[in-house]
Amino acid sequence: MKQTNQTRAKRPDNWVDVVEVGTRDGLQIESRIIPAARKIEILNKMIESGVREIEVTSFVSPKAVPQLADAAEVLAGVKRRPDTYLSALVPNVKGAERAAQSTVDAGMLFVSVSETHNHKNLNRSIADSIAGFAPVVEVLRAAGKGVMGGTAVAFGCPFEGEIDQSNLLRIVQAYAELGIDHVTLGDTTGMATPRNVRQTVRLLKREFPGIQLNLHLHNTRGVGLANVVVGLEEGVRRFDSSCGGLGGCPFAAGATGNICTEDLLYLLAESGYQTGIDLNGAIDVALMMEQSLEKRLAGQMMRAGPRLKLHSSDAVPTAAG
Amino acid sequence: MKQTNQTRAKRPDNWVDVVEVGTRDGLQIESRIIPAARKIEILNKMIESGVREIEVTSFVSPKAVPQLADAAEVLAGVKRRPDTYLSALVPNVKGAERAAQSTVDAGMLFVSVSETHNHKNLNRSIADSIAGFAPVVEVLRAAGKGVMGGTAVAFGCPFEGEIDQSNLLRIVQAYAELGIDHVTLGDTTGMATPRNVRQTVRLLKREFPGIQLNLHLHNTRGVGLANVVVGLEEGVRRFDSSCGGLGGCPFAAGATGNICTEDLLYLLAESGYQTGIDLNGAIDVALMMEQSLEKRLAGQMMRAGPRLKLHSSDAVPTAAG
Repeated sequence: MKQTNQTRAKRPDNWVDVVEVGTRDGLQIESRIIPAARKIEILNKMIESGVREIEVTSFVSPKAVPQLADAAEVLAGVKRRPDTYLSALVPNVKGAERAAQSTVDAGMLFVSVSETHNHKNLNRSIADSIAGFAPVVEVLRAAGKGVMGGTAVAFGCPFEGEIDQSNLLRIVQAYAELGIDHVTLGDTTGMATPRNVRQTVRLLKREFPGIQLNLHLHNTRGVGLANVVVGLEEGVRRFDSSCGGLGGCPFAAGATGNICTEDLLYLLAESGYQTGIDLNGAIDVALMMEQSLEKRLAGQMMRAGPRLKLHSSDAVPTAAG
Repeated sequence: MKQTNQTRAKRPDNWVDVVEVGTRDGLQIESRIIPAARKIEILNKMIESGVREIEVTSFVSPKAVPQLADAAEVLAGVKRRPDTYLSALVPNVKGAERAAQSTVDAGMLFVSVSETHNHKNLNRSIADSIAGFAPVVEVLRAAGKGVMGGTAVAFGCPFEGEIDQSNLLRIVQAYAELGIDHVTLGDTTGMATPRNVRQTVRLLKREFPGIQLNLHLHNTRGVGLANVVVGLEEGVRRFDSSCGGLGGCPFAAGATGNICTEDLLYLLAESGYQTGIDLNGAIDVALMMEQSLEKRLAGQMMRAGPRLKLHSSDAVPTAAG
């Protein structure tokens, strides 16, 4: 995370990092395979719009997620700027070895906060996942890669319901012991609420004063950006989002995916924060992605446009209220 | 507003009034006419789910809004509970006379905060609208109806951009002089932001200490519920919303309408507030409305369901992150 910290040092006080995860978490659930060349085109457009950090892909088994089988190719094809920082999920040593040979800047470890979800996702216990981190970190660091810590179902589990926060604490503790102070709280199926976002962020900041928290929120139940407001109030200055609100929820047909990048950018700008990302450029990215998938995405800004884009008073109908 | 105040006195400290506006603001923009009998069925289902206050319809010209030509019939058909409170928009004396003869409990006056929007919507200046309030109020009060004050484009105008807040102040002043302390801030085309919601609520509470503010927010740009969080923080305890997030924006094809009732209820419940409305019942209402319009509504809870509705761990696919 050296590069990130250096960059952050120069940033104004009202800076918020927006990490684009559309090509990873967003596309992961899509059955339509986007060709690597098109992904690269979209990623380049993101970078042009001012996006610094992108979770580009995942070094999971290509059999498990065919959409992301092109991980190394896509990473290598991106046209970087000096401050571009590209990361990818790394589930195990095999993934770490692929990451090590790639042009990725950092690997994101991950584990679920519920046993049932971790078993289903990674086929092992939380303890076994934690025990497996050290060799993964070793491979990544030996290759000069940054390492970040991820969590899934951090705000609730679709199988177990409320999660046991002692699991969260031991996961973050394990990350801390490996020198990983950069932790993402993943709201995998949209169970984060104003109450549990506030409570969880406070708990982790109290127990781990040096922690750098990232909120990875989904909009499954419509409250994704409301949770961002609460996160900001609690001092979180880093959020994952996906272009167009790409993605979905495997448990709810038609539910939306990650919080939408353009809508998040609008919220942040209209709350007095800077991100360095151009809203119109981000809308263009979302429209490109929509074109590639040939399906309507959930983003709102991509339909409505900036709020001060004015209309002629004799051009359009109106309605009271 | 006698009934509302009496009811409010018995309510717990964490109470929030959720006013359903789906059959008025939501349907107003829909070209497909819903028969009065079906509207009544939906309204009855709302009341069964615990909704107390409903802005049912509008006494505008039936020629201007054919969807709401059945105003009196719909109001008369609703099966009330003792705490049911039904309101309707009243644009002028003619509308007030129709309202006076109907079973509505209260009339909502309205005027736009921008001159251009008011001209386009009501074909007169803000000053003329204000001058026209007194006779409307007189007709309504003579018939024993409550009176509330509404505003359109209170957070920005699609024609003029940022609004002149001195217009807002003189409108609220006019309402105050007529003894109307119950004022709705209408975010007609979704231009409310965390910043202007906070600033406007503070301004009005400072200038009019006795004011009862209602926020009528749209989700045109995705930040509707984020604005609710800010409104709650500023002490607002009353919000309009529409079932399923019904409605749209005449300026942005595909943009969403009012904030969605079920998503709002979920946000409020998960933020520690009571509304007296059953979430599952509200989801049923949204599904009924969707069926009637034969088009997909924007609500998220109606797709995803309550967050603690658990899934079998061997039934469904999952994905990391």
